[in-house]
Amino acid sequence: MIICKVIGTVVASVKHKDLVASKLLIVQEIISENEMKGKDLFVATDSVGAGDGDVVLVTRGSNACADGSFASAMKMIPIDASIVGIVDNFSIDGKIKFRK
Amino acid sequence: MIICKVIGTVVASVKHKDLVASKLLIVQEIISENEMKGKDLFVATDSVGAGDGDVVLVTRGSNACADGSFASAMKMIPIDASIVGIVDNFSIDGKIKFRK
Amino acid sequence: MIICKVIGTVVASVKHKDLVASKLLIVQEIISENEMKGKDLFVATDSVGAGDGDVVLVTRGSNACADGSFASAMKMIPIDASIVGIVDNFSIDGKIKFRK
Amino acid sequence: MIICKVIGTVVASVKHKDLVASKLLIVQEIISENEMKGKDLFVATDSVGAGDGDVVLVTRGSNACADGSFASAMKMIPIDASIVGIVDNFSIDGKIKFRK
Amino acid sequence: MIICKVIGTVVASVKHKDLVASKLLIVQEIISENEMKGKDLFVATDSVGAGDGDVVLVTRGSNACADGSFASAMKMIPIDASIVGIVDNFSIDGKIKFRK
Repeated sequence: MIICKVIGTVVASVKHKDLVASKLLIVQEIISENEMKGKDLFVATDSVGAGDGDVVLVTRGSNACADGSFASAMKMIPIDASIVGIVDNFSIDGKIKFRK
Repeated sequence: MIICKVIGTVVASVKHKDLVASKLLIVQEIISENEMKGKDLFVATDSVGAGDGDVVLVTRGSNACADGSFASAMKMIPIDASIVGIVDNFSIDGKIKFRK
Repeated sequence: MIICKVIGTVVASVKHKDLVASKLLIVQEIISENEMKGKDLFVATDSVGAGDGDVVLVTRGSNACADGSFASAMKMIPIDASIVGIVDNFSIDGKIKFRK
Repeated sequence: MIICKVIGTVVASVKHKDLVASKLLIVQEIISENEMKGKDLFVATDSVGAGDGDVVLVTRGSNACADGSFASAMKMIPIDASIVGIVDNFSIDGKIKFRK
Repeated sequence: MIICKVIGTVVASVKHKDLVASKLLIVQEIISENEMKGKDLFVATDSVGAGDGDVVLVTRGSNACADGSFASAMKMIPIDASIVGIVDNFSIDGKIKFRK
């Protein structure tokens, strides 16, 4: 998983039927509270009630679809990233890099 | 998922049987309306009626096959990217980056 | 999927039992007819009768195994790339980049 | 799999239900005992009792969820990285690069 | 798949139960017999009897677990790379790049 910040939203009225109820958030990987890692940003669905500015845990790849809203072991949903946690704090080498 | 623009098409008369009915579009990741992100382009199937110039949401990886045309939880189709939405608008840090 | 050119072959007499009947081709991603994209090359199995010099459509990742020779929704084969189409032509921004 | 060092922890009180019991560790890929490979760090769950400073084996991608705590062939958990071993030593070209 | 050379080994006495019987080899991608491609190295399990110095075919991603030792369509093992063939020779643009 990677640690990201929610930085935007996407509106798509025409979308795959399995995504109709999904909130689409734009996220960017971070290294510490206000330090982005590179310029890569991507779109993730949300199953934990995350909102703009939140620091979140994001799962990518085909397991992303095994999230709270869709959870069914045998069902595959066409997503490749989902927010699976809202980060309270994280530390590296004993130093707090972010605290909510 | 990533936000892309549809920039081209591929014609392949000899193809895998599960792709015979698929429209093959060339897409490129974008950062804002007319700003491409790098030079990477790739081919995605379409299940939402996207066309040339559309800004779209693309899912990559093995979940890409769980799309509207093929949808069956237990069926795997040999694709690794599909268009799952047509973007109306998206915003980052409160600024609209694209509006249809 | 990505558009590649077939540029070589691999011979491996000792291989995984599920690969015994597979043709192993070396492919490289292209941008236009004779323009390679970077130096990356990799090995793909073939299910459409591709040969040396052909421009092909390649699916990567775990869905690659859902190809014509192996096709079975529940069977996983240890491959991560397969050729799923032979490209007749492709165009970007309205310009033909390759024609067979 | 890649060889990583455990360098930090993440606390997330709001998280996906399937992650409630998971320990979330921050890991970074290494080349030898004290030589990090680049600056990439990511979050992995742990199923082998790893702790801060340990050199570990990490599996990424959708198979990461097939770990000791969750193991069930048909169950998908929304994680994309897990620690699957604690490394005693590793050697490259006959030279020990790390010994516990 | 990619073509790699076996360059080392990993010993991990504490590991996931499904990896207990696995041989863990360190591999590096090659371009020709003695030309490494970049510095990336990673760990793969072996199911074909590969040893130090062998040039091998490696499958990455979630299909890696569909190998000879573990093979079961419905079973997921927490590995993301496995050696699936021992290369006798490979050629690019008609030139032999490696011969055993």
